Amino acid sequence: MGSFKGHALPGTFFLITGIWWTGKYSLWYATRRNKNIGSTRLTSRASQRRLEIIENSVLLFFSFVGMLAEQFVANGPKLHLYDFAEKHWEQLMNWQHSTMYLFFGLAGTVSLIIHTTEAAPLALDRLMLAIAFFNQGFLFLYHLHGRSMLDVHVHQLLLFAIFGEAIIAFLEVFHRGNIILELLRCSLTILQGSWFWQIGFVLYPSQSTDWDLQDHNNATFITMCYSWHLAFAMLVVSVLYCTINCVVRSRLKRTPPMEMGLLKPRDRDPESEDEIL
Amino acid sequence: MGSFKGHALPGTFFLITGIWWTGKYSLWYATRRNKNIGSTRLTSRASQRRLEIIENSVLLFFSFVGMLAEQFVANGPKLHLYDFAEKHWEQLMNWQHSTMYLFFGLAGTVSLIIHTTEAAPLALDRLMLAIAFFNQGFLFLYHLHGRSMLDVHVHQLLLFAIFGEAIIAFLEVFHRGNIILELLRCSLTILQGSWFWQIGFVLYPSQSTDWDLQDHNNATFITMCYSWHLAFAMLVVSVLYCTINCVVRSRLKRTPPMEMGLLKPRDRDPESEDEIL
Amino acid sequence: MGSFKGHALPGTFFLITGIWWTGKYSLWYATRRNKNIGSTRLTSRASQRRLEIIENSVLLFFSFVGMLAEQFVANGPKLHLYDFAEKHWEQLMNWQHSTMYLFFGLAGTVSLIIHTTEAAPLALDRLMLAIAFFNQGFLFLYHLHGRSMLDVHVHQLLLFAIFGEAIIAFLEVFHRGNIILELLRCSLTILQGSWFWQIGFVLYPSQSTDWDLQDHNNATFITMCYSWHLAFAMLVVSVLYCTINCVVRSRLKRTPPMEMGLLKPRDRDPESEDEIL
Amino acid sequence: MGSFKGHALPGTFFLITGIWWTGKYSLWYATRRNKNIGSTRLTSRASQRRLEIIENSVLLFFSFVGMLAEQFVANGPKLHLYDFAEKHWEQLMNWQHSTMYLFFGLAGTVSLIIHTTEAAPLALDRLMLAIAFFNQGFLFLYHLHGRSMLDVHVHQLLLFAIFGEAIIAFLEVFHRGNIILELLRCSLTILQGSWFWQIGFVLYPSQSTDWDLQDHNNATFITMCYSWHLAFAMLVVSVLYCTINCVVRSRLKRTPPMEMGLLKPRDRDPESEDEIL
Repeated sequence: MGSFKGHALPGTFFLITGIWWTGKYSLWYATRRNKNIGSTRLTSRASQRRLEIIENSVLLFFSFVGMLAEQFVANGPKLHLYDFAEKHWEQLMNWQHSTMYLFFGLAGTVSLIIHTTEAAPLALDRLMLAIAFFNQGFLFLYHLHGRSMLDVHVHQLLLFAIFGEAIIAFLEVFHRGNIILELLRCSLTILQGSWFWQIGFVLYPSQSTDWDLQDHNNATFITMCYSWHLAFAMLVVSVLYCTINCVVRSRLKRTPPMEMGLLKPRDRDPESEDEIL
Repeated sequence: MGSFKGHALPGTFFLITGIWWTGKYSLWYATRRNKNIGSTRLTSRASQRRLEIIENSVLLFFSFVGMLAEQFVANGPKLHLYDFAEKHWEQLMNWQHSTMYLFFGLAGTVSLIIHTTEAAPLALDRLMLAIAFFNQGFLFLYHLHGRSMLDVHVHQLLLFAIFGEAIIAFLEVFHRGNIILELLRCSLTILQGSWFWQIGFVLYPSQSTDWDLQDHNNATFITMCYSWHLAFAMLVVSVLYCTINCVVRSRLKRTPPMEMGLLKPRDRDPESEDEIL
Repeated sequence: MGSFKGHALPGTFFLITGIWWTGKYSLWYATRRNKNIGSTRLTSRASQRRLEIIENSVLLFFSFVGMLAEQFVANGPKLHLYDFAEKHWEQLMNWQHSTMYLFFGLAGTVSLIIHTTEAAPLALDRLMLAIAFFNQGFLFLYHLHGRSMLDVHVHQLLLFAIFGEAIIAFLEVFHRGNIILELLRCSLTILQGSWFWQIGFVLYPSQSTDWDLQDHNNATFITMCYSWHLAFAMLVVSVLYCTINCVVRSRLKRTPPMEMGLLKPRDRDPESEDEIL
Repeated sequence: MGSFKGHALPGTFFLITGIWWTGKYSLWYATRRNKNIGSTRLTSRASQRRLEIIENSVLLFFSFVGMLAEQFVANGPKLHLYDFAEKHWEQLMNWQHSTMYLFFGLAGTVSLIIHTTEAAPLALDRLMLAIAFFNQGFLFLYHLHGRSMLDVHVHQLLLFAIFGEAIIAFLEVFHRGNIILELLRCSLTILQGSWFWQIGFVLYPSQSTDWDLQDHNNATFITMCYSWHLAFAMLVVSVLYCTINCVVRSRLKRTPPMEMGLLKPRDRDPESEDEIL
């Protein structure tokens, strides 16, 4: 997977996930905040659950496709782990990436079970997400032996986003539905996505001039560049958040909630996000 | 204790402990969740307490046996610490393992006192468990001087599980009875157990071909292998959890709780796990 | 910015910020504590909000000026990032400092939006502050390659204050209005400010005798000196806190709250700091 | 202070502090738990406050004496910091120890102010204690340059206890009166005290045979020895806790609380430890 495409693909995946999550959490938060003016018409508890099921099915599907792709592409290991003839491991890189997909697949499966049945506590989906991100960071951490300085550096910077997401997701086990943690996780996901693209551009540049992978000025620039990516990710999240907030409010104003005098808000739609644990 | 058996024994111990804990916590959680359909018949508070006393007696017994075994096996130090004639320490490895057993024994003793008398706050048992795991990790941390690369690496990976368990047990002091933390601790215990077996297979292989302890490809494979062990541990925990959940529900359906109309659930059996601190 | 002035300027900035924050939080806390004897006359909720808006406008203004200054001073990069002719990065130091200002500017902008509109949850301002401090520490961390021992050491000590502030600000997301965390953050800000001055004196001494940047005795002294700066910062914060507390009480005693019998305190002025999240 | 006495003195100080704290917190906890059978006769809120004032006065006195002793003993710096003639720092070790005493003195002063006046929030005393321990660990951390292996190792082990105490004291800011955290802090204080004695015996042995400071077997033994000190500290704390618990109960049984029928317990004595923050 040591190619431009091999970094652009997961980058795109995390970018889309981050934007999707931002939209979802912003919508639900806007709905909860404006409950008194009837916003619960927009997202009922049943529709939230349906959304979660769709999201996790898609996640599960892509994890499965990812695992298959890593195994059966041109130079993949095709499920062989050890070459007994020549006594070496087969394509450990591909196996590592398969393992990362596996844990995201597990997180998707568990979330799917939680939201279709009532067998397990709700907060388990955040724990599985935390474990999936932690596992990704853990494999990256022991992934970098013997590479050149800048190569190690760009991957180490990625660990800030990955372990950051793991910690935030773990905190959400105890503070479920906290919009600040949710938006921070979205920002870090988008940061991870855009940084994968950046790694691709640095290590496999399309132009003729390569980066000097031993130059400390490059490392200094790249570190700063990471901050810019974070600022960019936070900008994307805020623009999305504000847009959705405004749209929800303007739609609520156009169609006044007539039945509000008849029913107490509490009775109509329990706030699903408050069911902590 | 540098032998295959020396790693298989604690491995088996932690595997059994992990599975036992998964069963216990799953049963109690299923009982708490289904209280309204009469599940408290299955585990009363008195039976919970009896279970804790049995569990901690067994733990205490095995810790004691472990300490004796480490001291009095063929090449053990037999309670001698320093050889004044030849001026060297006697069998420091065995003494270290005895110390690890000692702390698990202390945790067992304190839990036993807590659950038989009312002298100390309930949460103390989790603190003692956290200290026992922390002590195990602390001794392992300074245990690895001068070994070969792969040997150090497989033991360092073990520290993720050990310190993870210490942190989770410490969090349980404040969030007692949180099923998510409990199941995570169970998974990490099973991970520790199966990883001890893996260490045994890597360092003392039964087949003719030894592992090259300086090869970085082996280290990369072993890191990934650790993720698979974690996935396996989570699988075992989920299967056990679901089975117990289903069994509890089906047993409750077969024998309807007749007395439920007569007594309010609250009056019958206080939820022991909620007595935080 | 490698000059005495380049360290004195941010030092002064952080010193003023720390003192300002101490005053603000002490006043609000004294007001909240003495609510029953009518202190809410001194700071109403509207005036608190006005204060926040002014503070964040000033922060935004100075961040903008800082960014411009870093770019357009005599030897600044003037918005050029890469010199394609000579193939090297333009003034990476100035670009890094601009990036630090950028994140403080972002924190100011978001706070301004939060306190003028009601679009976002209140706790977001603390998260942005935490991210701004974290970003500052992050850039400093990868800033020190190839410098002399004492130079690296004085900058590393600074990281204790910076990352300390980031952690405290993050904790305030969950414990908003906790005076102990607020005063600790103030102390660390003043520590950061006075330490910048100390760095200036050590690296660019005005007298003839330079410091030996490789001498370990100097490093030992500097470490101890950092503790003294912390003690000094805590002293400044306590003196300010006590003074403001006394002034508030004496002013309340002189002008007795006549209307207190007419209105219940609760009805008059909700305690803005309790609106956690 | 590099002598046996120089380690035995702080050791004794921390041992006494740890035992004193264990007694104090055990008594208060026993009092709170047995409130319904009239235990509040034993410790009223006023007597608790008096105890705190005495404790902190003693702490302040010893910190002051410690600072003076470090400065004016035979080879002390006598408040001179820099020898301008020979261009070297004067006795940096003594200055460092003075700084450690200074922070414990500050913690004592602030606690004294908190418990005599009502100017500051109660939880501030734990924060000052956390800062005093953190400062001690911070100075020890940069204290070890150029020493022999075992010397560095025994001091590094000490950091586990010191930073542990800092973290526990910081947690107590939010969980004040949690007996588990309090007893853990007591154990770590006794551990610190007994370990100072151990360091004295290792580095300045009274017998003829010195320890080989480069031998890794010694380091392994010392690490294990640290675990034994922890077990010993926990034993001391538990014995004290149980004794005090029994004494409180037996005294309550002998003199039945006659007035209990007349006054509701709540009205008589508010539980001071619950005034979190």
